[in-house]
Amino acid sequence: MAASTVLTGAALAQALLRPRSVALVGVSDDLAKPAARPLQFLRRSGFAGAVYPINPKRDAVQGEQAWPDLAALPEVPEHAFVMTATEHVVGTVRECARLGVKVVTVLAGGFSEAGPEGQAREEELRRLSRETGVRVLGPSSLGVVHPSTGLILTANAAFAEPDLPRGKVFVASHSGSMIGALLSRGKARGVGFAGLVSVGGEADLSLGEIGLATLDDPEIDSYVLFLESLRHGAQLQQFAREAARRGKPVIAYKLGRSEAAAEMAVTHTGALAGEDDVADAFFRGLGIARVDNLEALLEAPALARRIPLDVSHGHRAPRVGVVTTTGGGAAMVVDQLGVRDVMVQPPSEETLARLARDGLPCTPGRVLDVTLAGANYETMKKVLAILLQAPEFDLVLAVVGSSARFQPQLAVKPILESADSRPGARPLAAMLVPDAPQALAELTAAGVPCFRSPEPCADAIAAVLRRRQPGPAATAQAQRAGAGAFVSEAQAYELLQRLEIAHAPAVTMPLAQAPRELPFDFPVVAKVCSAQIPHKTEVGGVVLGIADSSQLGEAFATLRRNLAERAPGVACDEVLVQPMRKGLMEALVGYRVDAEAGPVVMLAAGGIWAEVAQDRALRLAPVTMETAREMVSEVKAFRSLAGLRGRPRGDLEALAQAVCSLSQLAVRPQLGIAEAEVNPLMVLPQGQGVLAVDALVLRS
Amino acid sequence: MAASTVLTGAALAQALLRPRSVALVGVSDDLAKPAARPLQFLRRSGFAGAVYPINPKRDAVQGEQAWPDLAALPEVPEHAFVMTATEHVVGTVRECARLGVKVVTVLAGGFSEAGPEGQAREEELRRLSRETGVRVLGPSSLGVVHPSTGLILTANAAFAEPDLPRGKVFVASHSGSMIGALLSRGKARGVGFAGLVSVGGEADLSLGEIGLATLDDPEIDSYVLFLESLRHGAQLQQFAREAARRGKPVIAYKLGRSEAAAEMAVTHTGALAGEDDVADAFFRGLGIARVDNLEALLEAPALARRIPLDVSHGHRAPRVGVVTTTGGGAAMVVDQLGVRDVMVQPPSEETLARLARDGLPCTPGRVLDVTLAGANYETMKKVLAILLQAPEFDLVLAVVGSSARFQPQLAVKPILESADSRPGARPLAAMLVPDAPQALAELTAAGVPCFRSPEPCADAIAAVLRRRQPGPAATAQAQRAGAGAFVSEAQAYELLQRLEIAHAPAVTMPLAQAPRELPFDFPVVAKVCSAQIPHKTEVGGVVLGIADSSQLGEAFATLRRNLAERAPGVACDEVLVQPMRKGLMEALVGYRVDAEAGPVVMLAAGGIWAEVAQDRALRLAPVTMETAREMVSEVKAFRSLAGLRGRPRGDLEALAQAVCSLSQLAVRPQLGIAEAEVNPLMVLPQGQGVLAVDALVLRS
Repeated sequence: MAASTVLTGAALAQALLRPRSVALVGVSDDLAKPAARPLQFLRRSGFAGAVYPINPKRDAVQGEQAWPDLAALPEVPEHAFVMTATEHVVGTVRECARLGVKVVTVLAGGFSEAGPEGQAREEELRRLSRETGVRVLGPSSLGVVHPSTGLILTANAAFAEPDLPRGKVFVASHSGSMIGALLSRGKARGVGFAGLVSVGGEADLSLGEIGLATLDDPEIDSYVLFLESLRHGAQLQQFAREAARRGKPVIAYKLGRSEAAAEMAVTHTGALAGEDDVADAFFRGLGIARVDNLEALLEAPALARRIPLDVSHGHRAPRVGVVTTTGGGAAMVVDQLGVRDVMVQPPSEETLARLARDGLPCTPGRVLDVTLAGANYETMKKVLAILLQAPEFDLVLAVVGSSARFQPQLAVKPILESADSRPGARPLAAMLVPDAPQALAELTAAGVPCFRSPEPCADAIAAVLRRRQPGPAATAQAQRAGAGAFVSEAQAYELLQRLEIAHAPAVTMPLAQAPRELPFDFPVVAKVCSAQIPHKTEVGGVVLGIADSSQLGEAFATLRRNLAERAPGVACDEVLVQPMRKGLMEALVGYRVDAEAGPVVMLAAGGIWAEVAQDRALRLAPVTMETAREMVSEVKAFRSLAGLRGRPRGDLEALAQAVCSLSQLAVRPQLGIAEAEVNPLMVLPQGQGVLAVDALVLRS
Repeated sequence: MAASTVLTGAALAQALLRPRSVALVGVSDDLAKPAARPLQFLRRSGFAGAVYPINPKRDAVQGEQAWPDLAALPEVPEHAFVMTATEHVVGTVRECARLGVKVVTVLAGGFSEAGPEGQAREEELRRLSRETGVRVLGPSSLGVVHPSTGLILTANAAFAEPDLPRGKVFVASHSGSMIGALLSRGKARGVGFAGLVSVGGEADLSLGEIGLATLDDPEIDSYVLFLESLRHGAQLQQFAREAARRGKPVIAYKLGRSEAAAEMAVTHTGALAGEDDVADAFFRGLGIARVDNLEALLEAPALARRIPLDVSHGHRAPRVGVVTTTGGGAAMVVDQLGVRDVMVQPPSEETLARLARDGLPCTPGRVLDVTLAGANYETMKKVLAILLQAPEFDLVLAVVGSSARFQPQLAVKPILESADSRPGARPLAAMLVPDAPQALAELTAAGVPCFRSPEPCADAIAAVLRRRQPGPAATAQAQRAGAGAFVSEAQAYELLQRLEIAHAPAVTMPLAQAPRELPFDFPVVAKVCSAQIPHKTEVGGVVLGIADSSQLGEAFATLRRNLAERAPGVACDEVLVQPMRKGLMEALVGYRVDAEAGPVVMLAAGGIWAEVAQDRALRLAPVTMETAREMVSEVKAFRSLAGLRGRPRGDLEALAQAVCSLSQLAVRPQLGIAEAEVNPLMVLPQGQGVLAVDALVLRS
């Protein structure tokens, strides 16, 4: 067996993307077959390294010498592309590991998605990698493409494309066919690539690890991810944090906005698809721009390169200034931005005054419409100069009408000349309303963020301008999902107290005895209190509205009877008695460790609304107070506590504090809590705080 | 003055789109000016009719003879394009009217959007048209384009385009610049036009009337509308109903999804922008497909031509079958369809069996993925033949991967061959995942609905498949907005009773006297009852929870005191007393006449939730029971009354009946009701109906 030092970072990127030699195991001589493609592509692209066709049945493949097996090669190849049938894959990878091949890309499927036998195969690949250090890309990987060195190591037919567009965007995709689609779409839009990787089943190398390994490559300045799930979320998270630190933007398109697609992703890859709002929380918490339009996926990197994380300093909504030569065209973009809660900022009085001073269009309004002045070079040039100096905009967007198609000298040329890519310069982007491929190509080539349609434009702007610096990280220990036993409600309150979340007064008493005197007034509620009974109402374990001590005695009897009937044999010695407390509204605050995304904290309105209206906010845990306040403002039901129509104000600051406090479980693994749900948490009037009146805690 | 017979229908369309002669009033000799363009365009296109340049300052314009004024022309032109400055417009139109010009298109702005002076000008245009019969297009119209006759009567620079794409799509737009953008975008996508009209300020000719006038034109098979508002809604409605009757689809893109754009539409055109869900109700009620993606606006007509209204027979969700050569690509479309509540229908067992019998891919799943069989002609051809016979699909969508770009013979050719445009044939559409302009062009030319990106694809499919036959029409009398006085609550109940909407028992008594004995039990509520006090709680006019007759006496005293203090001098002689009735949930049902859209009926959950969460359903009134049931299912809050988690079921059928009943106000103008709001309407347990416990009615 070869050395078992695990290949990571730049060395991994080298063997993956810039190998000096590659072996094509199972290469086909039949040009109609996918397994024939890599050799064709490598030769056509002029790949400079050694290429070793391996085919035990033939001396020559596609006119080149073929070797019978890996051991027969004159050198150990750095990277092997294994295109053999599923049943031969493990043997081939074992041979690669024995010889010291650094990276093996596996084309075949039939692994974790294919029943117990397939799962055993995948486990064997993982074991080989773990024990020998060989890195495996796949299974079900369509391969790796690195245009600048001509490494077209893929069976994806789309790479028959002449003149692969070279650039600085790196694509990593769960879907192998999508790297081909992104290639052609990028080419059509003038977007070039530093690399494209089909990560397949991620038995060993995950998308996140590949991202991490390539982060220091100066040829890469941005990442485009096509995701079916958040599997290997911890590595994805690490990659995103490092990318943010280095200022390399990450744009993601993830399937699963609807249940149907989530279900497809499952059957397609064998992965478990999570809830979509967990994915939103994940991207948001890590400074990744998630777009919903395929076109935006390729248009966003140019914009993101110009826009730092936290461009709006986190505390306020991002502000876009719009100048246009077409009222109707600009209105489409403004509308689409509004739908995404990005408001267009009207020019300030000062900016309007500066425009007026130079005799430029300066009609007040949300958008600066220069139509009446006509689309002409001088006007546009001067207007842009003033807008790009104005402090009220995070981004200036020029929406250009008909002239963009045949008279780019009128409004497109001034944009080209005004865009300043130096750090700190105000970013300028363009949206072209007519079909104007030539102008789009020129803008793209000059690095000016530009858009072909209003929806991808607004999508990309909203996603990119909303990026924040990644929040605090959960501890590694807290990131692992997995759960032990529940604790009783009384024990849950103790834990909440350690997190400084207040609960309603509570006393416990033996269930078997008559109730003691209470330290608080009636009316009260009596609840069975046992770690064995997490869901008390299901066994009739709650009696509400107890008005006096005689009713309390009856309540104990009722609880004993209900337990005997509906939970016979379940250990329960105690009753928890609490005063009835009503707040202005009930909230639900929950913490759990998502199997993919890691620790998350959730805030929802209590009761039926949370279920029917999906009225909730979710974030990666832990969260800062600032983020917790943002969560409160996102839950619609709480807006009625913000002083709406003379209704009493709720203590929303205390609610945010409770969310922030509960989320700290992600950095306090010593508390040993895997999941916690405070439901209901009563929101009291402003200044009076919040009060837990029930809680469920699962030990880790 | 000329004859005052109003020009409508085919005669109007003739003068508007196919005039035998046109006058260009104020045409410029300076080629850089917009007013120079129409003459250039008409000459370049070879327009066969007479063209009369009119310019009092020159004998010749652009090398052609120019006339000093309209009266000097050798004949009365059918259509005059007036490009003079705002202040000369009215005089010119008056002259046109005097001479008998049939249609005058007015380019200048400065009318209703420009203060009292502009409004007076616009009123004068309207008066001229009314009194003389001259039809006015505009003001602020960029003109009219009719490619097949070469009538390029526009100042829009975009029509400098060589080879205007001819086809059967008719565009009518509130935005003049958008007709240019749609032209170039259509050209890029192989979509051609039968006509494009910039309707401008609609002082006389409205978009709806232009649509109506052109409906019998066999050269037009579908309509694309770009709308900033629903102004002149009655005509738009009449057009949509007639278009539906003739089977000519109408696709609309309307600004105003967000408040910012609604506000822009106002400043841009001087129109009042309504609420966006009223617009949704309008389109939905009239069989118009509203799309949200600009690209879908041009891609949808080809699909709509193949899909009849009510394709899913109204009673069930439309069903789309998907076959693909790319799992990831298809998942994007499935996801986007799911987001729009269009579910992808898996092939039935029978269909899978037929596929299996022919040795074709038949893996069960939401999508039929033929990837493993490879993208090849034979497989695709046979699979499509079977899917297009399967009764479970309203539409079959083929999502094609990489091969579409350079090997259309593999998967695109079978689509071209399988698409059957004969009436009754199952429609087939295609979505191409890579950039594949050639294949798109071939599919488009063959009339196969096809899409370039997943979001416009899903947008168009959802919008087109959801179209229904227009619902019943409101009476013309009920369509006019306008309102008289409120009636008292007691009178409101009488009106509800005539609509067969039950209310809680109620008795009225003189406010000045001691209460009489009640015909129902305590507890009760006492409310001031006066047409002068529509909002009772604002004056302290409601006392709840009255437990006995002594409390009732006190309540009367309280009401007298409150009225004296908070509404002194307001006429109120009576008190209305009702038993306290609680339902499972409160609903709000309202009817009103929207100034643009006409009568609408609204259903919402009662209380704070409706306000905060905008949880409501809205339709044009009247509605059928079927539509009313659909409205009930749309309001999320009512889902908790549908048997969720063992909660009691509410009488949702009675709720739908109440909605249907109230909506009948739109066809019963003799009841004289302009607005009615039942709030709250208590939803009782299943079988027990609904009960109005307050109502507000505004007489018309």
